Amino acid sequence: MNLDALYSELTLKTNAKLALVVLDGLGDLAIREQNNMTPLEAAVTPNLDALARDSAQGRMIPVAPGITPGSGPGHLGLFGYDPLEFQVGRGVIEALGLGMELKPGDVCARANFATLDSKGIVTDRRAGRIPTETCEKLCAMLSARVTKIGDTEVLIKAGKEHRFVVVFRGKDLEGPLTDADPNREGFVIPTVKPRDPENAKQRKMAQVIADFYKAAMPVISREKPANGFLMRGIAHQPHIPLFEDRYKLKPVALAVYPMYKGLAQLVGMKKIEGPQTIRELFERYLVEYDRFDFFFIHYKYTDKYGEDGNFAAKKKAIEDFDAVLPILLRKKPDVLAITGDHSTPCAAKGHSWHPQPVLLHSKLSGTDKLERFTETGANQGSLGVFKAKYLIRLMQANARMFDKFGA
Amino acid sequence: MNLDALYSELTLKTNAKLALVVLDGLGDLAIREQNNMTPLEAAVTPNLDALARDSAQGRMIPVAPGITPGSGPGHLGLFGYDPLEFQVGRGVIEALGLGMELKPGDVCARANFATLDSKGIVTDRRAGRIPTETCEKLCAMLSARVTKIGDTEVLIKAGKEHRFVVVFRGKDLEGPLTDADPNREGFVIPTVKPRDPENAKQRKMAQVIADFYKAAMPVISREKPANGFLMRGIAHQPHIPLFEDRYKLKPVALAVYPMYKGLAQLVGMKKIEGPQTIRELFERYLVEYDRFDFFFIHYKYTDKYGEDGNFAAKKKAIEDFDAVLPILLRKKPDVLAITGDHSTPCAAKGHSWHPQPVLLHSKLSGTDKLERFTETGANQGSLGVFKAKYLIRLMQANARMFDKFGA
Repeated sequence: MNLDALYSELTLKTNAKLALVVLDGLGDLAIREQNNMTPLEAAVTPNLDALARDSAQGRMIPVAPGITPGSGPGHLGLFGYDPLEFQVGRGVIEALGLGMELKPGDVCARANFATLDSKGIVTDRRAGRIPTETCEKLCAMLSARVTKIGDTEVLIKAGKEHRFVVVFRGKDLEGPLTDADPNREGFVIPTVKPRDPENAKQRKMAQVIADFYKAAMPVISREKPANGFLMRGIAHQPHIPLFEDRYKLKPVALAVYPMYKGLAQLVGMKKIEGPQTIRELFERYLVEYDRFDFFFIHYKYTDKYGEDGNFAAKKKAIEDFDAVLPILLRKKPDVLAITGDHSTPCAAKGHSWHPQPVLLHSKLSGTDKLERFTETGANQGSLGVFKAKYLIRLMQANARMFDKFGA
Repeated sequence: MNLDALYSELTLKTNAKLALVVLDGLGDLAIREQNNMTPLEAAVTPNLDALARDSAQGRMIPVAPGITPGSGPGHLGLFGYDPLEFQVGRGVIEALGLGMELKPGDVCARANFATLDSKGIVTDRRAGRIPTETCEKLCAMLSARVTKIGDTEVLIKAGKEHRFVVVFRGKDLEGPLTDADPNREGFVIPTVKPRDPENAKQRKMAQVIADFYKAAMPVISREKPANGFLMRGIAHQPHIPLFEDRYKLKPVALAVYPMYKGLAQLVGMKKIEGPQTIRELFERYLVEYDRFDFFFIHYKYTDKYGEDGNFAAKKKAIEDFDAVLPILLRKKPDVLAITGDHSTPCAAKGHSWHPQPVLLHSKLSGTDKLERFTETGANQGSLGVFKAKYLIRLMQANARMFDKFGA
């Protein structure tokens, strides 16, 4: 029997409030150079400690053993969608990261300006990393001159340095397509092709890209070093079952960065604009408490400093989080999960595959008799090591949202 | 999405050196009669202890909960091949155990001499457990008189006591077939049949076996008590994707016993001849360090003494191993895993289903803050309890051999 179907069948609507608090990239490694401590272990966290004494802990595998997820798969897993089943193209993720509002069916591409020689051969795939202002100027030129390809609307938005995103909005369009990128210098830009040659929508999309190149390339042909552009990860926004239908929970996203608001929107969460700090996010949670059942609250800095390999800053980011946690607890949710979307160990200076620690608190979580919330403590927790996609099911269970299975 | 396909897609070639050190049957049980200690816990292991302080630990399920594996499934799992998907016939395992060099497509059968009465009824399935020398003499007689069946080459090799192996090498042959063994005394030897009657290669193979019986039985008809023979586990060497293609690692097997060299060869590992002790295996590792990327190093005695139920000898075997471990560490591999292929508890006097402990050491393993490598410690490790087939994926991840999944 399909497990998701079983969960759906057993799901009961309740009045419970559930909060999923994500410290991005929270998980870390204890290594000798850090006195065998992780930032979470080294941080002073009186409020998390108090919570830990009445909570269950465990560790979560974001996707599969050894697989390091990007933010997309990391969050889809936390939202209960198997990241192997629901794959989101890189173009879509980039568009979300730039705060673009996508509609179902939109096809997105990551793009970057490049340098071509007189024969059209790519001589620099990043156009010498032009300044962001140049990129914005070029994107404005393209946006002004190329607004439509046939009946397909074209939306262009500049990113940092040489990067930008193109969104195609129209009828009967689908990805994924092959890349318009030779992936190394010394070759011409290849023509994109449907990944599935039998798919008529992919074939139409490939033609739209070809026509887009014809229209757009002349606009920047004199703008050396940015006299060309490459496109990758061309795919449409996938169909994802709505969060509210799937879990019988009315969800809201409280996040600062566009990427995470966008990922939440992909599954149909309501997006809230305004808050700029974790304190403001928690304060807004108090305001929105009665309007929603499920609160996704995202904190970025643990990941950011992990990526920098900055142990002290990651530790401090955790302490800053801990300091404002009591604001959330003023209206304590019935079920509270605190975790990461993956690990970002300082030693790795990037995302990793190491299972992230998770703390689950409710009247029915029990206590694992741990004095703190840490990676090493979580190893001994009652939740064990499990796939992240099950967290939301455990939260639902703790909210007594599942009927008994069988008599 | 198929997970193996995803792993392949994300795999990057690196210069990392990976070593998988297998103490056969390492896992054991702490029971009251042994002062609640396992041999690994009772052993004095200063070198493993030092490694454990900078390592991750966990326990591995060889095949599935409660399933006790033979050496074949145990090692295939460690090599990253799901033992339920890749099944190797007992005839093949026996042939490998006798050091026979198999070719793809070879059909192998376990055989043993038996006693038949004048009507052909089996009166002793083991021919009174004739001495090994008698078995060798009889096999030599058979080998001399039956070298071919039609265009199929026949290879016969004696094992211990009444046991021997027959390998059929020819065109269009396949297993599995039913057994030429009534499985109890008082019945005639049944005619073998294809497991799949639609399979022409199995039908041909069944005919070859029938013709082999016609040719071979007269050769030994006067050799009572060994005047007949039975054949079981008749199957061909399965197609297994090559280790090097699957993991982008150039592998070598360092083992003393033929069975383990043979299992490694099945997946395409290079076999090294010569070393006779674990010290010699580690010394050879140093010599071969630059020529390979993946080192499978096999130590037999933990299993042997577990099978004997000899706690003191198993403990001593672990201490002997520990004493020479520093030789391996002279050229420390980038990723080192130390584990068993299954448990062989002294209390069980045989293989068992209990998850074996595993230690994983790399710059990115982190430390679980455990002072020793033991079964009880491994229960608290960050790797949790996982299927053995994922170990190699974790090793690859620790070697940074996987690209990020999704953006």
